[in-house]
Amino acid sequence: MKNATFYHAGCPVCVNAEEEILNLVDPRKVRVHTVHLGQSTDQIPVAEGLGVQSVPALVIDDNVLHINFGAALEDLKS
Amino acid sequence: MKNATFYHAGCPVCVNAEEEILNLVDPRKVRVHTVHLGQSTDQIPVAEGLGVQSVPALVIDDNVLHINFGAALEDLKS
Repeated sequence: MKNATFYHAGCPVCVNAEEEILNLVDPRKVRVHTVHLGQSTDQIPVAEGLGVQSVPALVIDDNVLHINFGAALEDLKS
Repeated sequence: MKNATFYHAGCPVCVNAEEEILNLVDPRKVRVHTVHLGQSTDQIPVAEGLGVQSVPALVIDDNVLHINFGAALEDLKS
């Protein structure tokens, strides 16, 4: 079972991508944990450390998949 | 059962994203068709019509998820 984290910031692009991704994931293969970086700002350095540069992003093991472009991580810091 | 098309051009970013996406998809919910736009150049206008602007991209129904950035569709035309 793989672990994945879906990082987002609640923006329309994020919500759309989240719905599509969560709808297509096979729960027998991947467990997806969702993190709202607009609310859990303490998780921004963690996401940055994994290589996340913008949201929405899906991190599977240590592989970062940036999905469309909702917001840059830098913008979430201010 | 949803239908999805994974557009790519064989670039390293594309191959990585393809492996990750195909590994997490639930075959009971989504059937993924893969199109290599570097080889099937006749499909470039189709992808463009769906709103694809870069590859790799996953199109689910009429929703386009651009994943990371491998190449712009314009560059595949030349």
